[in-house]
Amino acid sequence: MSEFSTTWRVQYYETDKMGIVHHSNYIRYFETARTEYIRECGLAYDDMEKAGIWMPVLNVNVQFKTPAVYDEIIRIRCRTAKVRGASVDLQYEISNYETGEVHVTGSSSHGFTTPELKPIKIKRDAPEIYRIFEKAKEECDE
Amino acid sequence: MSEFSTTWRVQYYETDKMGIVHHSNYIRYFETARTEYIRECGLAYDDMEKAGIWMPVLNVNVQFKTPAVYDEIIRIRCRTAKVRGASVDLQYEISNYETGEVHVTGSSSHGFTTPELKPIKIKRDAPEIYRIFEKAKEECDE
Amino acid sequence: MSEFSTTWRVQYYETDKMGIVHHSNYIRYFETARTEYIRECGLAYDDMEKAGIWMPVLNVNVQFKTPAVYDEIIRIRCRTAKVRGASVDLQYEISNYETGEVHVTGSSSHGFTTPELKPIKIKRDAPEIYRIFEKAKEECDE
Amino acid sequence: MSEFSTTWRVQYYETDKMGIVHHSNYIRYFETARTEYIRECGLAYDDMEKAGIWMPVLNVNVQFKTPAVYDEIIRIRCRTAKVRGASVDLQYEISNYETGEVHVTGSSSHGFTTPELKPIKIKRDAPEIYRIFEKAKEECDE
Repeated sequence: MSEFSTTWRVQYYETDKMGIVHHSNYIRYFETARTEYIRECGLAYDDMEKAGIWMPVLNVNVQFKTPAVYDEIIRIRCRTAKVRGASVDLQYEISNYETGEVHVTGSSSHGFTTPELKPIKIKRDAPEIYRIFEKAKEECDE
Repeated sequence: MSEFSTTWRVQYYETDKMGIVHHSNYIRYFETARTEYIRECGLAYDDMEKAGIWMPVLNVNVQFKTPAVYDEIIRIRCRTAKVRGASVDLQYEISNYETGEVHVTGSSSHGFTTPELKPIKIKRDAPEIYRIFEKAKEECDE
Repeated sequence: MSEFSTTWRVQYYETDKMGIVHHSNYIRYFETARTEYIRECGLAYDDMEKAGIWMPVLNVNVQFKTPAVYDEIIRIRCRTAKVRGASVDLQYEISNYETGEVHVTGSSSHGFTTPELKPIKIKRDAPEIYRIFEKAKEECDE
Repeated sequence: MSEFSTTWRVQYYETDKMGIVHHSNYIRYFETARTEYIRECGLAYDDMEKAGIWMPVLNVNVQFKTPAVYDEIIRIRCRTAKVRGASVDLQYEISNYETGEVHVTGSSSHGFTTPELKPIKIKRDAPEIYRIFEKAKEECDE
Protein backbone atom coordinates (compact mmCIF):
# COMPACT_ATOMS: atom_id res chain seq x y z
CA MET A 1 0.00 0.00 0.00
CA SER A 2 3.01 2.26 0.11
CA GLU A 3 2.01 2.85 -3.49
CA PHE A 4 -1.76 2.90 -3.52
CA SER A 5 -3.63 4.10 -6.57
CA THR A 6 -7.04 3.70 -8.15
CA THR A 7 -8.32 4.60 -11.61
CA TRP A 8 -11.30 6.56 -12.90
CA ARG A 9 -12.69 7.27 -16.35
CA VAL A 10 -13.57 10.97 -16.71
CA GLN A 11 -17.34 11.36 -17.18
CA TYR A 12 -19.05 13.77 -19.56
CA TYR A 13 -20.90 15.49 -16.71
CA GLU A 14 -17.55 16.23 -15.05
CA THR A 15 -16.44 18.47 -17.93
CA ASP A 16 -17.25 22.16 -18.25
CA LYS A 17 -17.49 24.57 -21.16
CA MET A 18 -13.68 24.89 -21.23
CA GLY A 19 -13.86 21.31 -22.56
CA ILE A 20 -11.89 19.99 -19.58
CA VAL A 21 -12.70 18.54 -16.14
CA HIS A 22 -14.21 21.21 -13.89
CA HIS A 23 -11.68 21.89 -11.14
CA SER A 24 -14.11 21.11 -8.30
CA ASN A 25 -14.24 17.48 -9.41
CA TYR A 26 -10.64 16.78 -8.46
CA ILE A 27 -11.72 17.19 -4.82
CA ARG A 28 -14.23 14.44 -5.50
CA TYR A 29 -11.56 12.26 -7.11
CA PHE A 30 -9.50 12.71 -3.94
CA GLU A 31 -12.45 11.45 -1.94
CA THR A 32 -12.92 8.45 -4.22
CA ALA A 33 -9.25 7.50 -3.88
CA ARG A 34 -9.26 8.17 -0.14
CA THR A 35 -12.20 5.80 0.38
CA GLU A 36 -10.51 3.05 -1.61
CA TYR A 37 -7.19 3.69 0.08
CA ILE A 38 -8.45 3.41 3.63
CA ARG A 39 -10.48 0.37 2.63
CA GLU A 40 -7.21 -1.29 1.54
CA CYS A 41 -5.66 -0.16 4.83
CA GLY A 42 -8.39 -2.18 6.53
CA LEU A 43 -10.98 0.50 7.26
CA ALA A 44 -14.32 0.54 5.44
CA TYR A 45 -15.45 4.14 5.69
CA ASP A 46 -19.07 3.05 5.66
CA ASP A 47 -18.48 0.73 8.65
CA MET A 48 -16.61 3.51 10.45
CA GLU A 49 -19.60 5.82 10.04
CA LYS A 50 -21.92 3.08 11.24
CA ALA A 51 -19.66 2.71 14.30
CA GLY A 52 -20.21 6.39 14.98
CA ILE A 53 -16.86 7.74 13.82
CA TRP A 54 -16.90 10.41 11.13
CA MET A 55 -13.84 11.69 9.33
CA PRO A 56 -14.61 15.23 8.19
CA VAL A 57 -12.25 17.23 5.99
CA LEU A 58 -10.39 19.97 7.90
CA ASN A 59 -8.63 21.45 4.89
CA VAL A 60 -7.84 20.64 1.31
CA ASN A 61 -5.23 22.03 -1.07
CA VAL A 62 -5.02 21.44 -4.81
CA GLN A 63 -2.40 22.42 -7.37
CA PHE A 64 -3.64 22.25 -10.96
CA LYS A 65 -0.90 21.44 -13.49
CA THR A 66 -2.55 20.19 -16.69
CA PRO A 67 -6.22 19.50 -17.48
CA ALA A 68 -7.78 16.05 -17.62
CA VAL A 69 -10.28 15.57 -20.45
CA TYR A 70 -13.45 13.64 -21.22
CA ASP A 71 -13.15 9.86 -21.44
CA GLU A 72 -9.54 9.91 -20.25
CA ILE A 73 -8.53 7.26 -17.74
CA ILE A 74 -6.82 8.89 -14.80
CA ARG A 75 -4.79 7.36 -11.99
CA ILE A 76 -5.31 8.76 -8.49
CA ARG A 77 -2.53 8.09 -6.02
CA CYS A 78 -3.15 8.49 -2.29
CA ARG A 79 -0.74 8.16 0.66
CA THR A 80 -0.59 8.95 4.37
CA ALA A 81 1.69 11.91 5.02
CA LYS A 82 1.23 12.45 8.76
CA VAL A 83 -0.66 10.88 11.67
CA ARG A 84 -1.41 12.89 14.80
CA GLY A 85 -3.35 12.12 17.95
CA ALA A 86 -6.57 13.48 16.51
CA SER A 87 -6.02 14.00 12.78
CA VAL A 88 -4.29 12.64 9.67
CA ASP A 89 -2.82 14.24 6.54
CA LEU A 90 -3.17 12.57 3.16
CA GLN A 91 -1.49 13.39 -0.14
CA TYR A 92 -2.74 12.87 -3.69
CA GLU A 93 -1.48 12.88 -7.25
CA ILE A 94 -3.74 12.58 -10.26
CA SER A 95 -2.19 11.68 -13.60
CA ASN A 96 -3.00 10.26 -17.00
CA TYR A 97 -3.08 6.48 -16.65
CA GLU A 98 -1.18 5.83 -19.87
CA THR A 99 1.32 8.65 -20.20
CA GLY A 100 1.80 9.43 -16.52
CA GLU A 101 1.39 13.16 -17.19
CA VAL A 102 0.54 14.79 -13.88
CA HIS A 103 -2.74 16.72 -13.82
CA VAL A 104 -3.10 17.61 -10.19
CA THR A 105 -1.36 17.26 -6.83
CA GLY A 106 -2.94 17.95 -3.48
CA SER A 107 -3.42 17.17 0.16
CA SER A 108 -6.16 16.99 2.77
CA SER A 109 -6.30 16.87 6.55
CA HIS A 110 -9.00 14.99 8.38
CA GLY A 111 -10.26 15.02 11.93
CA PHE A 112 -12.36 12.36 13.59
CA THR A 113 -15.71 13.14 15.19
CA THR A 114 -18.92 11.70 16.54
CA PRO A 115 -22.01 12.07 14.31
CA GLU A 116 -22.68 15.23 16.34
CA LEU A 117 -19.31 16.51 15.11
CA LYS A 118 -17.62 16.33 18.52
CA PRO A 119 -13.87 15.67 18.06
CA ILE A 120 -12.50 12.21 18.83
CA LYS A 121 -8.83 11.77 19.79
CA ILE A 122 -8.16 8.58 17.89
CA LYS A 123 -4.81 7.89 19.55
CA ARG A 124 -6.55 7.69 22.92
CA ASP A 125 -10.17 6.85 22.11
CA ALA A 126 -10.01 4.79 18.92
CA PRO A 127 -6.50 3.28 19.01
CA GLU A 128 -7.37 0.62 16.40
CA ILE A 129 -7.98 3.41 13.86
CA TYR A 130 -4.85 5.25 14.99
CA ARG A 131 -2.78 2.12 14.46
CA ILE A 132 -4.15 1.54 10.98
CA PHE A 133 -3.11 5.01 9.86
CA GLU A 134 0.25 4.72 11.64
CA LYS A 135 0.91 1.47 9.81
CA ALA A 136 -0.12 3.08 6.51
CA LYS A 137 2.27 5.93 7.23
CA GLU A 138 5.14 3.54 7.93
CA GLU A 139 4.52 1.71 4.67
CA CYS A 140 4.62 5.02 2.81
CA ASP A 141 8.00 5.79 4.39
CA GLU A 142 9.62 2.52 3.38
CA MET B 1 -49.15 31.31 -6.60
CA SER B 2 -51.15 30.11 -9.56
CA GLU B 3 -48.16 31.48 -11.43
CA PHE B 4 -45.16 30.66 -9.29
CA SER B 5 -41.66 31.08 -10.65
CA THR B 6 -38.15 31.57 -9.37
CA THR B 7 -34.94 32.59 -11.13
CA TRP B 8 -31.42 31.15 -11.30
CA ARG B 9 -28.20 32.28 -12.89
CA VAL B 10 -26.51 29.39 -14.72
CA GLN B 11 -23.19 28.55 -13.05
CA TYR B 12 -19.95 27.65 -14.81
CA TYR B 13 -19.80 24.26 -13.08
CA GLU B 14 -23.23 23.43 -14.50
CA THR B 15 -21.98 23.56 -18.10
CA ASP B 16 -20.37 20.67 -19.94
CA LYS B 17 -18.00 20.39 -22.88
CA MET B 18 -20.89 20.96 -25.31
CA GLY B 19 -20.73 24.52 -23.92
CA ILE B 20 -24.28 24.27 -22.56
CA VAL B 21 -25.94 23.27 -19.28
CA HIS B 22 -25.48 19.54 -18.63
CA HIS B 23 -28.92 17.96 -18.90
CA SER B 24 -28.81 16.43 -15.40
CA ASN B 25 -28.82 19.91 -13.87
CA TYR B 26 -32.37 20.66 -15.01
CA ILE B 27 -33.52 18.01 -12.53
CA ARG B 28 -31.73 20.05 -9.87
CA TYR B 29 -33.37 23.27 -11.09
CA PHE B 30 -36.73 21.51 -10.71
CA GLU B 31 -35.83 20.73 -7.10
CA THR B 32 -34.78 24.32 -6.43
CA ALA B 33 -38.06 25.64 -7.80
CA ARG B 34 -40.08 22.96 -6.01
CA THR B 35 -38.56 23.91 -2.66
CA GLU B 36 -39.31 27.61 -3.20
CA TYR B 37 -42.78 26.81 -4.52
CA ILE B 38 -43.90 24.71 -1.56
CA ARG B 39 -42.37 27.28 0.78
CA GLU B 40 -44.65 29.90 -0.80
CA CYS B 41 -47.53 27.46 -0.43
CA GLY B 42 -46.80 27.48 3.29
CA LEU B 43 -44.61 24.40 3.68
CA ALA B 44 -40.92 24.72 4.54
CA TYR B 45 -39.42 21.48 3.26
CA ASP B 46 -36.79 21.60 5.97
CA ASP B 47 -39.47 21.82 8.68
CA MET B 48 -41.40 19.01 7.04
CA GLU B 49 -38.32 16.78 7.21
CA LYS B 50 -37.75 17.75 10.82
CA ALA B 51 -41.38 16.76 11.50
CA GLY B 52 -40.56 13.33 10.09
CA ILE B 53 -42.24 13.66 6.69
CA TRP B 54 -40.09 13.11 3.62
CA MET B 55 -41.20 13.77 0.07
CA PRO B 56 -39.18 11.46 -2.19
CA VAL B 57 -39.36 11.65 -5.98
CA LEU B 58 -41.34 8.78 -7.53
CA ASN B 59 -40.68 9.71 -11.15
CA VAL B 60 -39.40 12.58 -13.21
CA ASN B 61 -39.81 13.41 -16.90
CA VAL B 62 -37.93 16.07 -18.84
CA GLN B 63 -38.29 17.34 -22.38
CA PHE B 64 -35.29 19.27 -23.65
CA LYS B 65 -36.16 21.95 -26.23
CA THR B 66 -33.27 24.43 -26.40
CA PRO B 67 -30.07 24.67 -24.35
CA ALA B 68 -29.48 27.14 -21.53
CA VAL B 69 -25.99 28.61 -21.45
CA TYR B 70 -23.45 29.91 -18.94
CA ASP B 71 -24.34 33.09 -17.06
CA GLU B 72 -27.87 33.13 -18.49
CA ILE B 73 -30.68 33.98 -16.11
CA ILE B 74 -33.38 31.36 -16.33
CA ARG B 75 -36.92 31.37 -15.00
CA ILE B 76 -38.23 28.14 -13.48
CA ARG B 77 -42.00 27.85 -13.27
CA CYS B 78 -43.59 25.24 -10.98
CA ARG B 79 -47.25 24.32 -10.48
CA THR B 80 -49.34 21.58 -8.89
CA ALA B 81 -50.90 19.36 -11.53
CA LYS B 82 -52.58 16.68 -9.42
CA VAL B 83 -53.12 15.84 -5.75
CA ARG B 84 -53.90 12.29 -4.65
CA GLY B 85 -54.36 10.68 -1.26
CA ALA B 86 -50.70 9.75 -1.01
CA SER B 87 -48.87 11.61 -3.79
CA VAL B 88 -48.73 14.83 -5.80
CA ASP B 89 -47.75 15.68 -9.38
CA LEU B 90 -45.87 18.88 -10.18
CA GLN B 91 -45.11 20.50 -13.53
CA TYR B 92 -42.17 22.68 -14.56
CA GLU B 93 -41.10 24.99 -17.34
CA ILE B 94 -37.64 26.48 -17.61
CA SER B 95 -37.13 29.45 -19.92
CA ASN B 96 -34.82 32.36 -20.60
CA TYR B 97 -35.77 35.11 -18.17
CA GLU B 98 -35.54 37.89 -20.73
CA THR B 99 -36.72 36.39 -24.01
CA GLY B 100 -39.08 33.76 -22.61
CA GLU B 101 -37.57 31.12 -24.91
CA VAL B 102 -38.47 27.72 -23.45
CA HIS B 103 -35.52 25.47 -22.65
CA VAL B 104 -37.14 22.60 -20.84
CA THR B 105 -40.52 21.32 -19.70
CA GLY B 106 -41.07 18.51 -17.25
CA SER B 107 -42.95 16.92 -14.42
CA SER B 108 -42.35 14.99 -11.24
CA SER B 109 -44.44 12.86 -8.89
CA HIS B 110 -43.77 12.71 -5.17
CA GLY B 111 -44.83 10.38 -2.42
CA PHE B 112 -44.68 11.09 1.29
CA THR B 113 -42.81 8.84 3.70
CA THR B 114 -41.35 8.52 7.17
CA PRO B 115 -37.56 8.87 7.45
CA GLU B 116 -37.54 5.06 7.20
CA LEU B 117 -39.21 5.48 3.79
CA LYS B 118 -42.56 4.02 4.90
CA PRO B 119 -45.40 5.59 2.82
CA ILE B 120 -47.65 8.17 4.48
CA LYS B 121 -51.19 8.74 3.18
CA ILE B 122 -51.28 12.50 3.52
CA LYS B 123 -55.04 12.79 2.95
CA ARG B 124 -55.65 10.64 6.02
CA ASP B 125 -52.51 11.01 8.13
CA ALA B 126 -51.20 14.51 7.38
CA PRO B 127 -54.35 16.40 6.28
CA GLU B 128 -52.72 19.82 6.79
CA ILE B 129 -50.19 18.93 4.07
CA TYR B 130 -52.90 17.49 1.84
CA ARG B 131 -54.89 20.72 2.17
CA ILE B 132 -51.92 22.89 1.27
CA PHE B 133 -51.37 21.01 -1.98
CA GLU B 134 -55.11 20.93 -2.74
CA LYS B 135 -55.24 24.71 -2.29
CA ALA B 136 -52.19 25.10 -4.52
CA LYS B 137 -53.89 22.94 -7.14
CA GLU B 138 -57.06 25.04 -7.02
CA GLU B 139 -55.06 28.22 -7.48
CA CYS B 140 -53.37 26.69 -10.52
CA ASP B 141 -56.78 25.90 -12.00
CA GLU B 142 -58.16 29.39 -11.64
CA MET C 1 -24.60 -6.78 -26.30
CA SER C 2 -28.24 -7.77 -26.16
CA GLU C 3 -27.54 -7.71 -22.44
CA PHE C 4 -25.18 -4.84 -21.87
CA SER C 5 -24.46 -3.63 -18.38
CA THR C 6 -21.77 -1.75 -16.51
CA THR C 7 -21.13 -1.30 -12.80
CA TRP C 8 -20.53 1.69 -10.55
CA ARG C 9 -19.69 2.12 -6.90
CA VAL C 10 -21.87 4.84 -5.32
CA GLN C 11 -19.69 7.77 -4.21
CA TYR C 12 -20.08 9.75 -1.00
CA TYR C 13 -20.62 13.01 -2.92
CA GLU C 14 -23.56 11.39 -4.72
CA THR C 15 -25.54 10.98 -1.52
CA ASP C 16 -27.78 13.64 0.02
CA LYS C 17 -29.04 14.35 3.52
CA MET C 18 -31.70 11.64 3.14
CA GLY C 19 -28.70 9.30 3.35
CA ILE C 20 -29.37 7.93 -0.15
CA VAL C 21 -28.25 8.73 -3.70
CA HIS C 22 -29.62 12.10 -4.80
CA HIS C 23 -32.15 11.42 -7.56
CA SER C 24 -30.41 13.65 -10.12
CA ASN C 25 -27.42 11.31 -10.15
CA TYR C 26 -29.33 8.46 -11.76
CA ILE C 27 -29.47 10.60 -14.92
CA ARG C 28 -25.68 10.71 -14.74
CA TYR C 29 -25.50 6.94 -14.26
CA PHE C 30 -27.62 6.59 -17.41
CA GLU C 31 -25.07 8.70 -19.26
CA THR C 32 -22.17 6.63 -17.94
CA ALA C 33 -23.83 3.41 -19.08
CA ARG C 34 -24.87 4.93 -22.42
CA THR C 35 -21.29 5.93 -23.19
CA GLU C 36 -19.98 2.45 -22.38
CA TYR C 37 -22.84 0.82 -24.25
CA ILE C 38 -22.33 2.69 -27.52
CA ARG C 39 -18.58 2.15 -27.17
CA GLU C 40 -19.26 -1.60 -27.11
CA CYS C 41 -21.55 -1.14 -30.11
CA GLY C 42 -18.53 0.26 -31.93
CA LEU C 43 -19.01 4.01 -31.43
CA ALA C 44 -16.65 6.00 -29.22
CA TYR C 45 -18.71 9.02 -28.23
CA ASP C 46 -15.57 11.11 -28.01
CA ASP C 47 -14.62 10.23 -31.61
CA MET C 48 -18.17 10.96 -32.74
CA GLU C 49 -17.96 14.45 -31.23
CA LYS C 50 -14.57 14.98 -32.84
CA ALA C 51 -16.15 13.97 -36.18
CA GLY C 52 -18.70 16.74 -35.64
CA ILE C 53 -21.69 14.64 -34.59
CA TRP C 54 -23.28 15.39 -31.23
CA MET C 55 -25.97 13.28 -29.61
CA PRO C 56 -28.01 15.58 -27.36
CA VAL C 57 -30.71 14.28 -25.04
CA LEU C 58 -34.25 15.05 -26.28
CA ASN C 59 -36.05 13.68 -23.26
CA VAL C 60 -35.45 11.52 -20.23
CA ASN C 61 -37.82 9.64 -17.95
CA VAL C 62 -36.97 8.01 -14.64
CA GLN C 63 -39.01 5.83 -12.30
CA PHE C 64 -37.59 5.58 -8.79
CA LYS C 65 -38.35 2.27 -7.04
CA THR C 66 -35.88 1.85 -4.17
CA PRO C 67 -32.91 3.97 -3.09
CA ALA C 68 -29.27 3.12 -3.77
CA VAL C 69 -26.92 3.89 -0.89
CA TYR C 70 -23.32 4.93 -0.28
CA ASP C 71 -20.61 2.44 -1.24
CA GLU C 72 -23.13 0.09 -2.86
CA ILE C 73 -22.13 -1.45 -6.17
CA ILE C 74 -24.88 -0.92 -8.71
CA ARG C 75 -25.41 -2.48 -12.11
CA ILE C 76 -26.65 -0.22 -14.91
CA ARG C 77 -28.27 -1.97 -17.85
CA CYS C 78 -28.71 -0.15 -21.17
CA ARG C 79 -30.40 -1.26 -24.39
CA THR C 80 -31.62 0.19 -27.67
CA ALA C 81 -35.42 0.37 -27.74
CA LYS C 82 -36.07 2.17 -31.04
CA VAL C 83 -34.09 3.55 -33.99
CA ARG C 84 -35.58 6.24 -36.22
CA GLY C 85 -34.19 8.21 -39.15
CA ALA C 86 -32.98 10.99 -36.89
CA SER C 87 -33.19 9.74 -33.31
CA VAL C 88 -32.82 6.72 -31.04
CA ASP C 89 -34.52 5.60 -27.84
CA LEU C 90 -32.57 3.87 -25.10
CA GLN C 91 -33.78 2.08 -21.96
CA TYR C 92 -32.09 1.64 -18.59
CA GLU C 93 -32.37 -0.37 -15.42
CA ILE C 94 -30.28 0.27 -12.33
CA SER C 95 -30.11 -2.44 -9.67
CA ASN C 96 -28.02 -3.66 -6.76
CA TYR C 97 -25.16 -5.70 -8.23
CA GLU C 98 -25.41 -8.47 -5.68
CA THR C 99 -29.09 -8.84 -4.86
CA GLY C 100 -30.54 -7.65 -8.18
CA GLU C 101 -32.99 -5.38 -6.37
CA VAL C 102 -34.17 -2.77 -8.88
CA HIS C 103 -33.55 0.84 -7.87
CA VAL C 104 -34.53 2.74 -10.98
CA THR C 105 -35.84 2.22 -14.51
CA GLY C 106 -35.83 4.82 -17.23
CA SER C 107 -35.47 5.83 -20.84
CA SER C 108 -33.96 8.57 -22.95
CA SER C 109 -34.32 9.76 -26.54
CA HIS C 110 -31.41 11.27 -28.43
CA GLY C 111 -31.15 13.30 -31.59
CA PHE C 112 -28.03 13.86 -33.64
CA THR C 113 -26.73 17.33 -34.43
CA THR C 114 -23.76 19.33 -35.66
CA PRO C 115 -21.74 21.19 -32.99
CA GLU C 116 -24.01 24.15 -33.89
CA LEU C 117 -26.96 21.97 -32.81
CA LYS C 118 -28.40 21.61 -36.34
CA PRO C 119 -30.21 18.25 -36.65
CA ILE C 120 -28.57 15.43 -38.61
CA LYS C 121 -30.72 12.70 -40.16
CA ILE C 122 -28.45 9.78 -39.43
CA LYS C 123 -30.30 7.34 -41.70
CA ARG C 124 -29.52 9.57 -44.68
CA ASP C 125 -26.46 11.56 -43.64
CA ALA C 126 -24.54 9.28 -41.27
CA PRO C 127 -25.65 5.77 -42.32
CA GLU C 128 -22.71 4.11 -40.53
CA ILE C 129 -24.08 5.42 -37.23
CA TYR C 130 -27.62 4.47 -38.17
CA ARG C 131 -26.49 0.93 -38.94
CA ILE C 132 -24.67 0.58 -35.62
CA PHE C 133 -27.81 1.45 -33.67
CA GLU C 134 -29.99 -0.72 -35.94
CA LYS C 135 -27.67 -3.66 -35.26
CA ALA C 136 -27.77 -2.93 -31.53
CA LYS C 137 -31.56 -2.87 -31.70
CA GLU C 138 -31.67 -6.23 -33.49
CA GLU C 139 -29.42 -7.79 -30.87
CA CYS C 140 -31.74 -6.50 -28.15
CA ASP C 141 -34.69 -8.14 -29.90
CA GLU C 142 -33.11 -11.55 -30.17
CA MET D 1 -15.91 46.55 -3.62
CA SER D 2 -13.36 46.45 -0.87
CA GLU D 3 -16.11 44.47 0.83
CA PHE D 4 -17.72 42.37 -1.88
CA SER D 5 -20.05 39.57 -0.96
CA THR D 6 -22.85 37.59 -2.53
CA THR D 7 -25.42 35.22 -1.02
CA TRP D 8 -26.54 31.69 -1.80
CA ARG D 9 -29.22 29.42 -0.40
CA VAL D 10 -27.85 25.91 0.20
CA GLN D 11 -29.59 23.43 -2.09
CA TYR D 12 -30.72 19.93 -1.16
CA TYR D 13 -28.51 18.34 -3.85
CA GLU D 14 -25.48 20.04 -2.26
CA THR D 15 -25.85 18.09 0.98
CA ASP D 16 -24.42 14.64 1.62
CA LYS D 17 -25.29 11.78 3.97
CA MET D 18 -23.54 13.59 6.82
CA GLY D 19 -26.53 15.96 6.57
CA ILE D 20 -24.27 18.90 5.73
CA VAL D 21 -22.93 20.55 2.57
CA HIS D 22 -20.49 18.25 0.78
CA HIS D 23 -17.06 19.84 1.05
CA SER D 24 -16.48 19.92 -2.73
CA ASN D 25 -19.32 22.40 -3.12
CA TYR D 26 -17.47 25.18 -1.31
CA ILE D 27 -15.08 25.28 -4.28
CA ARG D 28 -18.16 25.90 -6.43
CA TYR D 29 -19.37 28.64 -4.08
CA PHE D 30 -15.95 30.28 -4.48
CA GLU D 31 -16.46 30.22 -8.24
CA THR D 32 -19.94 31.71 -7.95
CA ALA D 33 -18.65 34.56 -5.79
CA ARG D 34 -15.59 35.06 -8.01
CA THR D 35 -17.77 35.47 -11.09
CA GLU D 36 -20.00 38.01 -9.37
CA TYR D 37 -17.00 39.78 -7.87
CA ILE D 38 -15.12 40.30 -11.13
CA ARG D 39 -18.40 41.32 -12.78
CA GLU D 40 -18.68 44.10 -10.18
CA CYS D 41 -15.04 44.97 -10.86
CA GLY D 42 -16.08 45.56 -14.46
CA LEU D 43 -15.21 42.21 -16.05
CA ALA D 44 -17.93 39.88 -17.30
CA TYR D 45 -16.23 36.47 -17.27
CA ASP D 46 -18.39 35.36 -20.18
CA ASP D 47 -17.26 38.34 -22.29
CA MET D 48 -13.65 37.67 -21.31
CA GLU D 49 -13.94 34.08 -22.58
CA LYS D 50 -15.56 35.31 -25.77
CA ALA D 51 -12.61 37.70 -26.19
CA GLY D 52 -10.33 34.66 -26.01
CA ILE D 53 -9.03 35.08 -22.46
CA TRP D 54 -9.52 32.22 -20.04
CA MET D 55 -8.80 32.38 -16.34
CA PRO D 56 -8.01 28.84 -15.18
CA VAL D 57 -7.50 27.95 -11.53
CA LEU D 58 -3.85 27.31 -10.65
CA ASN D 59 -4.45 26.28 -7.07
CA VAL D 60 -7.13 26.36 -4.42
CA ASN D 61 -6.97 26.03 -0.64
CA VAL D 62 -9.90 25.59 1.71
CA GLN D 63 -10.10 25.52 5.50
CA PHE D 64 -13.31 23.99 6.85
CA LYS D 65 -14.41 25.43 10.21
CA THR D 66 -18.11 24.63 10.68
CA PRO D 67 -20.61 22.97 8.37
CA ALA D 68 -23.28 24.80 6.36
CA VAL D 69 -26.63 23.04 6.22
CA TYR D 70 -29.59 22.62 3.90
CA ASP D 71 -31.69 25.70 3.22
CA GLU D 72 -29.27 27.97 5.07
CA ILE D 73 -28.47 31.31 3.48
CA ILE D 74 -24.73 31.77 3.30
CA ARG D 75 -22.68 34.86 2.55
CA ILE D 76 -19.61 34.43 0.34
CA ARG D 77 -17.00 37.17 0.60
CA CYS D 78 -14.37 37.55 -2.13
CA ARG D 79 -11.40 39.93 -2.36
CA THR D 80 -8.24 40.41 -4.39
CA ALA D 81 -5.16 39.49 -2.34
CA LYS D 82 -2.37 39.86 -4.90
CA VAL D 83 -1.93 40.86 -8.55
CA ARG D 84 1.11 39.72 -10.53
CA GLY D 85 2.12 40.15 -14.16
CA ALA D 86 0.47 36.91 -15.17
CA SER D 87 -1.71 35.79 -12.26
CA VAL D 88 -3.95 36.94 -9.42
CA ASP D 89 -4.71 35.62 -5.92
CA LEU D 90 -8.21 35.82 -4.47
CA GLN D 91 -9.43 35.16 -0.93
CA TYR D 92 -12.79 33.92 0.29
CA GLU D 93 -14.83 33.61 3.44
CA ILE D 94 -18.13 31.78 3.66
CA SER D 95 -20.37 32.42 6.65
CA ASN D 96 -23.95 32.16 7.83
CA TYR D 97 -25.79 35.20 6.50
CA GLU D 98 -27.66 35.88 9.73
CA THR D 99 -25.30 34.91 12.52
CA GLY D 100 -22.00 35.59 10.77
CA GLU D 101 -20.63 32.23 11.92
CA VAL D 102 -17.70 31.37 9.64
CA HIS D 103 -18.01 28.06 7.79
CA VAL D 104 -15.05 28.16 5.45
CA THR D 105 -12.09 30.33 4.48
CA GLY D 106 -9.98 29.85 1.40
CA SER D 107 -7.96 31.20 -1.48
CA SER D 108 -7.36 30.57 -5.16
CA SER D 109 -4.75 31.64 -7.71
CA HIS D 110 -5.62 32.15 -11.35
CA GLY D 111 -3.57 32.44 -14.48
CA PHE D 112 -4.74 33.82 -17.80
CA THR D 113 -4.57 31.81 -21.00
CA THR D 114 -5.77 31.56 -24.58
CA PRO D 115 -8.51 28.99 -25.30
CA GLU D 116 -5.58 26.68 -26.20
CA LEU D 117 -4.35 27.17 -22.61
CA LYS D 118 -1.26 29.19 -23.62
CA PRO D 119 -0.34 31.64 -20.80
CA ILE D 120 -1.10 35.34 -21.27
CA LYS D 121 0.91 37.93 -19.35
CA ILE D 122 -1.91 40.30 -18.55
CA LYS D 123 0.34 43.13 -17.39
CA ARG D 124 1.92 43.27 -20.85
CA ASP D 125 -0.68 41.73 -23.18
CA ALA D 126 -4.03 42.57 -21.59
CA PRO D 127 -3.30 45.69 -19.53
CA GLU D 128 -7.00 46.62 -19.25
CA ILE D 129 -7.55 43.38 -17.30
CA TYR D 130 -4.41 43.93 -15.24
CA ARG D 131 -5.61 47.42 -14.29
CA ILE D 132 -9.04 46.15 -13.22
CA PHE D 133 -7.49 43.68 -10.79
CA GLU D 134 -4.94 46.24 -9.58
CA LYS D 135 -7.76 48.67 -8.84
CA ALA D 136 -9.69 45.91 -7.06
CA LYS D 137 -6.59 45.15 -4.98
CA GLU D 138 -6.17 48.80 -4.02
CA GLU D 139 -9.78 49.01 -2.91
CA CYS D 140 -9.26 45.94 -0.74
CA ASP D 141 -6.29 47.61 0.90
CA GLU D 142 -8.11 50.79 1.82
